[in-house]
This record gives sequence, C-alpha cells and structure tokens, in this order.
Amino acid sequence: MDNLKKQALEFHRGGKIAIASKVKMDTRAELSLAYTPGVAYPCLEINKNKEDAYLYTSKANTIAVITDGTAVLGLGDIGPEAAMPVMEGKCLLFKKFAGIDAIPICLNTKDTEEIIKTVAMIAPSFGGINLEDISFPRCVEIEKRLNDMLDIPVFHDDQRGTAVVVGAALINAARMAKKPLDTLKVAMSGMGAAGSNIAQMLRKMGVKTIYGYNIDGIITKKKNNHPALNRLLETGIINSCDDYETDALATIVSGADVFIGVSVANVLTKEMVNKMADRPIIFALANPNPEIDYPEVQVSKAFIYATGRSDYPNQINNVLAFPGIFKGVLATPHRKISWNMCVAASRAIAELITEKELKTDYIIPSVFDERVVETVSKAVRETED
Amino acid sequence: MDNLKKQALEFHRGGKIAIASKVKMDTRAELSLAYTPGVAYPCLEINKNKEDAYLYTSKANTIAVITDGTAVLGLGDIGPEAAMPVMEGKCLLFKKFAGIDAIPICLNTKDTEEIIKTVAMIAPSFGGINLEDISFPRCVEIEKRLNDMLDIPVFHDDQRGTAVVVGAALINAARMAKKPLDTLKVAMSGMGAAGSNIAQMLRKMGVKTIYGYNIDGIITKKKNNHPALNRLLETGIINSCDDYETDALATIVSGADVFIGVSVANVLTKEMVNKMADRPIIFALANPNPEIDYPEVQVSKAFIYATGRSDYPNQINNVLAFPGIFKGVLATPHRKISWNMCVAASRAIAELITEKELKTDYIIPSVFDERVVETVSKAVRETED
Repeated sequence: MDNLKKQALEFHRGGKIAIASKVKMDTRAELSLAYTPGVAYPCLEINKNKEDAYLYTSKANTIAVITDGTAVLGLGDIGPEAAMPVMEGKCLLFKKFAGIDAIPICLNTKDTEEIIKTVAMIAPSFGGINLEDISFPRCVEIEKRLNDMLDIPVFHDDQRGTAVVVGAALINAARMAKKPLDTLKVAMSGMGAAGSNIAQMLRKMGVKTIYGYNIDGIITKKKNNHPALNRLLETGIINSCDDYETDALATIVSGADVFIGVSVANVLTKEMVNKMADRPIIFALANPNPEIDYPEVQVSKAFIYATGRSDYPNQINNVLAFPGIFKGVLATPHRKISWNMCVAASRAIAELITEKELKTDYIIPSVFDERVVETVSKAVRETED
Repeated sequence: MDNLKKQALEFHRGGKIAIASKVKMDTRAELSLAYTPGVAYPCLEINKNKEDAYLYTSKANTIAVITDGTAVLGLGDIGPEAAMPVMEGKCLLFKKFAGIDAIPICLNTKDTEEIIKTVAMIAPSFGGINLEDISFPRCVEIEKRLNDMLDIPVFHDDQRGTAVVVGAALINAARMAKKPLDTLKVAMSGMGAAGSNIAQMLRKMGVKTIYGYNIDGIITKKKNNHPALNRLLETGIINSCDDYETDALATIVSGADVFIGVSVANVLTKEMVNKMADRPIIFALANPNPEIDYPEVQVSKAFIYATGRSDYPNQINNVLAFPGIFKGVLATPHRKISWNMCVAASRAIAELITEKELKTDYIIPSVFDERVVETVSKAVRETED
C-alpha cells in the first residue's frame, strides 16, 4: 500500500464530521428549555410564521451537501456510499472556510425525478442546497427545477462553482496578457457540467468567441448533438465551429488565445500550444492529471498555466468560490444564487490580486488566503439580484 | 410574555446544533488527505465493499431524526418547519446521552408513500433512522415498511421508545405493589402510537389483561374500529371489553390494578382511582398536563403515581431508552431493533433500582442517572435477535 493511501485511510477512520451543541444543556433547567416544555415556544412561533425557522433553528446557517454519487471527483459513478468521504470533506470545507454547517446526504437513486422529489421533501430543514458531483446533463435539469420549486438557494457546485473560479483566473490572465476579454478566442475541451457553465460565465463577462470540443469531437451545428449541447449552440453560449478540416481538438486550439480543459489527461500537446496565438493562456483543469502536464507546458510557448493541483502554480479550486457564495446568499433575503452574483464573485476574487502583485504564476489567490471568503460573500451580498 | 417563553425563545436563537470536525485540517497536507487527492482512497475502498462505509465515514455513529411534523409533543400537526426545534432538541439528547451524531430532517409531506420513499432515498448516509412525532396510525406502517426495506435500524421513538420506559416503570411498580405481572388488570387511555406499543410491550412481559379506551370510547370487538385497533384486538394484544354498561373510561378503570394514560389531561378522577383494586398504579403520561394531576392523586388511594413531568416524582421519559437502544444496536452487526431488545432494555432499566432503594416515588431512574445509557446499550448488545 503506498504511503498516501495508508495515510488517507487512517485519516478517514471513523469519519470526519460530528454534531456539536451550540447550547449548554447540563442542568434540568437547561434540559427543559432545550426540550419539553420550553421547546414548545419556538415551535409555536414558527407554526405562526414559517420564516421564524431562520431565527429559532439552525436552518439559517445549515445547508445540505447532496449527491447521487454519479460523478465523484475523477472516479465517476461510484455510488452513494462511496461518495460519502467526498461529501464529508466538502462539509468540512464549508465549516472551515465559511463557518457554515453542512450535512452530507447521499441518495440511493440516479433517477432525475426521484432526486428532485427527495431534495424537495427534505428541504425544510435547510437554508440552502449544495448539489455535488451529479453527472451531466441530469445535474443541469435537477439544479434548475429545484431552484424553481424551492424557496432556498440550490447550487450545483460542479457547474457554476467551477465557473466562478475559472472566470476570476481568466480576468487576471487576460490582464497579464494585455488582451481585452471581448477579443479572446477561447477553445474548450469538455462541455459537461463544468464546461457548459464556464462557457456561460465567459459570455457574461464579455467573451465573444468560444469553441467547444468533447468526446464526440468538435461541437458544431452540423452534428446531431445532445439536446444540452444544442441549447448551448442555439442560445449562442458557444460558437458553432463549421469550417474545419479535421475533427480534432488541434483545429479549435490553433490560433486560440485561451485553452480551457475540463476533460481528461493529456489531450493537449506542446505542439498544439505552440500553434496558439501569442502569450497563450492554458487552464488544464482535469483532475488529478491535467490536459497537459507541467513539464511539457514548460517547454512550450505557454504564457500562463493553471491547473486544479495544489502542487503546481495557479491552483483553480472551487473552494475559492462556494464557501463565500453560500455565506453571502445565506446572509441576504435572496433565496437564489443568480448569475450576477457569480460574476460579481469572479471579479471580486480576481481583484484581490493587485496589478503590482500579478505574475504569470500568481493569477489567482491561494485557497488559504483568508480574505477570499469575506470578499466573495460581500460581492454576493451586495449584488441586487 | 411569560418568563419561560422568553427564556426559551432566547435559548433557541440561532438554533441548537452545528457541525464539528473530527479531524485536523489546517495545513495543505491535511487538506489533501481530507479532500482531493487523498479522499479518493476511502471512496475506492467503499466502492469495492459498501460495508467499509462503516469504517471510513461517519455513518456508523450517525443517525437521522426524521419527522413530518404531524404529532409534535402535545402540539399536534404543526408542520415540518415548526417541528425543527424539537428535532434539534432530540439530536442534542442523542449526543449528550449516547455520543451519537444525530441530524434533524423535517419532511415536506404527510403522505405515507412519500415519507417511506424519501427516507429510503437518503438512508445511505446514515447508520440508523429515528422516526419522531409522526401521527398514528401512519407511523406504524412507515416504521414497519422501512424496517423491511432498509439494512439499517428504523425506530419510531413514540412507539417502542415510550413502551420500553413504561415497561421498566411497571416492572418496579408491580414489585412494590407485590403483584405479579401476569395477574395485573391494566386499563389504558389512548391507543395511538404509544398506547398500542405499550400494550404490546406489556404482553411481551407477561401481562394478560389489558383493556383500552380512546376518543371513541371503550375498545371492543362490537364496534366498527379503525383497522389498526382491530389488529390489536385480533392478535390478542388488547382484550375486548364486551360487557359494559356505560361506554366510559370509568368502566375499565374500575377494579383495575394499573391505569396507563397516553391521552389527554384530566380524564381520570380521584373517584375513579378510588374504585381501582388495592394499591393502584397510575401512569398519567399526557404532556404537559397528565390524565390526573398530582394534587388530586394525592387525595386518592393511589399507591404509585408516575408522569412525564420532571417536576413530579417518577418521570417516565423516553430519554431513558432511545440513546442506549441506538448506542447498543449501532455497536452490533444487527440491523434491526427487535422486540426482544426492547424487553431486555426495559428489564435492565428496572433493575438499576435495587430492592432496597425502591420507593413509591422512586420506581424509575433519573434521566441524569449516568448508568442508564450503558445499561440499556449492554442489554441491547447482548440480545441475540
């Protein structure tokens, strides 16, 4: 057994989270406040006015982290039980970075309707729902319909959470490359949960040219695409790449200013990077092994390189976004996380790095930068809708 | 606003429970164990063998406290949001008395099928399910069907939890009254969730004569009863009271050795108590106001008097049972809480009071008696099935 495996299994023994009391309950008098007869009073207040649940229960600061275990890390469909360590880890991140109490719920179904129904049924206990690691394209429908049904925010982190951090990194990368966002030609590899939301985020930020590539090749109106991809094309979120000679990633990468990969290891080569525009920006976000690895990118003409890894420079990690986004929205009367909030969050993260501090290996704050959560939270709170 | 109300609302501000970390996660190295990449290892182990969820996640020590808010305390159907303070209180009791991490889930439905489905969907995250405050008779079917479906214990505390503590109290009360259990004539008021399970418990302990009374009067085969009541009659759990002159509680109480009320305030009078057999035992468990109040019982011939209240002697409180029952079953490979475990728990609680200590106002241990949880847990663990 290798060392990391051994350490990780030992670390996880007995699980990672527990319940703690926020109140003192040692005497008979305290017991009769926490439980009968005293507990009847907050019950009756909430019964009169449901909103008082935000006042007299833990709801206001508690969210559910919910998965069906279908798209866990890079491991894929490993099922609800096996997804638990990741969900508990996510709950720890919510607590550590934003002080939010998050509860892992792993669902024994992959059926879209059953997932929606179950989440709606358990919603009264929670102030928000963080959907996690649900595979594309079901996740899109599940997030949208739950947001329409419920009066609490519902957010699939693998969609807009990733998009917020990529957006922040791109703002700073483009600043360094001295290219306005609306002039960028972007080539993307992977158009699933993360990819399709990154494309939407880039559009909201003013990017005009985005070509996509996925497991079926270059995305174009000429193909018989999945409805989710057709929606991206029809709504102009991605451009249709209609004149190409070979159905290869190299075609859209050639001449591009930016490559964004949320796909699989090693699909990008240094030869492809060298055919990009000047000062190319490479976000190779496949985990744990990026679309192009650090040693290879170092011998290419790449100008900026970012990955999801903590051992390389410029780590693009969702933890920069989701704690502050939920902290912000839970502190407002808003019951939805809007795209405007997400764009504001991206800009706020980017602006934490001053013009003077900005370097090709420092375009995004560290996950341990304590300013991030409050900055993101404030940006969300101050966004009107 | 009276003082208790003011105190209770202040006590509940912000809610009563939070999430805590069981692990240290301050450094980048610890973060990479708790989350990617380290977290992948326990995921893969559990993916190979589902049972490893008990080893590498919090499942083994975590239960869900689930309600639909239909029978909350004495408040009735107050809905899922208003039930939250009680569920959080219950979670605190699980933590304080048994070290179990319990999570409150309030369901946005009263439909039996939807409740069953929802609980089954969220079950993978939990080592057990404590159903709470679900109204009779739906609770009986919900508990039974979930126990049949799931591989974790499902227990509606308002059914057998109450029955275990009443059983314990009756063992000691009968000892004091020097009446063997199989000679007792028992009159019950209230045949809902608690009542029907108390009757079953008494039968398991050897009681032979149990008459029931509820909102429709005396329970007899001659009436057109609810199917749940007919089941109790047909299976011989309660006796059919067929020759009676007036359809009044007084009829079955007259000559009885024991009165057990899980109904409403003030249905029992001192005149009725005075017509009971010698040394009558009165368990008046309606909350917060018992079937007969302490001042009135004191001027009757009652021998032993117990209520649910902490300010009267002999408090019959579920907290004597559920923490130890779950602690016991979670520590065994058993995935069901059997009737045998419940009877063993009753006897174990009763036996904590020695012959010498036994008094008419001390037939049941205090809720703060620290021996109780381990005694109950041990009795459950050592019961074969």
